[in-house]
Amino acid sequence: MSPSSRPSLGLIGLGAFGGFCRPHLERIFTVRGHDPALPCDATLAEAASKPVVVLAVPVARLAEVAQAIAPHLRPGALVVEVCSLKLHPLAVLRAALPDHVELLGTHPLFGPQSGRDGIAGLRLALCPPADARPSARARLAGRMLRGLGLEVVRMSPEEHDRQMAWVQGLTHLLGRIVASLEMPELPHTTSSFDQLLRAVGMVSQDSEALFRTITEDNPFVSEVKARLLAEAETVLRPARPALAA
Amino acid sequence: MSPSSRPSLGLIGLGAFGGFCRPHLERIFTVRGHDPALPCDATLAEAASKPVVVLAVPVARLAEVAQAIAPHLRPGALVVEVCSLKLHPLAVLRAALPDHVELLGTHPLFGPQSGRDGIAGLRLALCPPADARPSARARLAGRMLRGLGLEVVRMSPEEHDRQMAWVQGLTHLLGRIVASLEMPELPHTTSSFDQLLRAVGMVSQDSEALFRTITEDNPFVSEVKARLLAEAETVLRPARPALAA
Repeated sequence: MSPSSRPSLGLIGLGAFGGFCRPHLERIFTVRGHDPALPCDATLAEAASKPVVVLAVPVARLAEVAQAIAPHLRPGALVVEVCSLKLHPLAVLRAALPDHVELLGTHPLFGPQSGRDGIAGLRLALCPPADARPSARARLAGRMLRGLGLEVVRMSPEEHDRQMAWVQGLTHLLGRIVASLEMPELPHTTSSFDQLLRAVGMVSQDSEALFRTITEDNPFVSEVKARLLAEAETVLRPARPALAA
Repeated sequence: MSPSSRPSLGLIGLGAFGGFCRPHLERIFTVRGHDPALPCDATLAEAASKPVVVLAVPVARLAEVAQAIAPHLRPGALVVEVCSLKLHPLAVLRAALPDHVELLGTHPLFGPQSGRDGIAGLRLALCPPADARPSARARLAGRMLRGLGLEVVRMSPEEHDRQMAWVQGLTHLLGRIVASLEMPELPHTTSSFDQLLRAVGMVSQDSEALFRTITEDNPFVSEVKARLLAEAETVLRPARPALAA
């Protein structure tokens, strides 16, 4: 696609994830980016007036950003969020944004760490709101994401949050537990220990805000915590001597 | 080395680990193997009468095997054990074997899983008993193991057990906890979750006997369990609402 014929996209939030995904989006779109805290090439109003608007902001900032962009959104615009949860962010956006825009939840199952050598073959969950019929524009967005080489997986927001309570919740919870252990220096390790520490190391570079989103805001994560704690207690508690008969 | 000029080695125990390491040993030694429960090419007496005798048996069987081989060992023989601990197995062997044999503790930090594509570059801990001066024969054994491409790391039996309480203890304890969770089917995962499950999957194929050796018989593992449980409780317990002032 020649630059002039590319569709326009407003990217709001140019932090760790926004900055990471911008060059990938620029393979398809003419991107105009805004971030109140960083140097950027568009005002909020300008970025929010594009036919596709991507919100790369933490869940905790979403309501505030939605209110700020609402007056600038065009009728029929597609507003895309990229949070690690789906039920809560989509509800926040539906409450704050005008009815004349369409919402699309996406969750790239990768980030600056796992996508540093390219995003081809990595997974993205595509979650249209449960009560909405996806438009031609939303279907086109799915095809464009596939065109970036991503494996696009469609699921409902609830199914997404149930699965991610395990996939992300378990990884981040174990990552936090292992990182808190203050292990001694261990120069001589096994392959499985090295692999365990690599998995834990990947998530420990994520932000505290993302840790809280994944391990506190997901309504299904409390079951993961309870089961993990129960198994930890079973495996780790010292055995009590059997009572005398 | 031509087959006829190779030194002789008796391998006692041809189970998962003995069977795995035999072809590697045969690159250096003429190996005669014995296992009471498997087809083998030597009697116990024959295998135990070689100048080097490797015991590839679980810790729980070590005392019994040591008593059985004791009458057949030659003066000056080098008896090598390959257990995942060092303090306890070396004490068992010293108590059961005649003073005229030399003991050498080794711990290959790999196994049939991690060594399935070859052992070059993998680590082996070499632990001469604390009270013994390593002989020319023990030093030669170290050079031979390096000749197989292994990274041979020398440490005392106590230092070994302290480190392995973390390296193997933590991996196996977390492996057991995660394997007990009965997670739902999760078709859409992240790279770090995949890596976590690979680490856990590697150790979950080890035997129950090895799990007990690593997580119960190591005198330093109780501290690992206590710290892991304390951090798990801190991270996983639901926050209590603050008391009213």
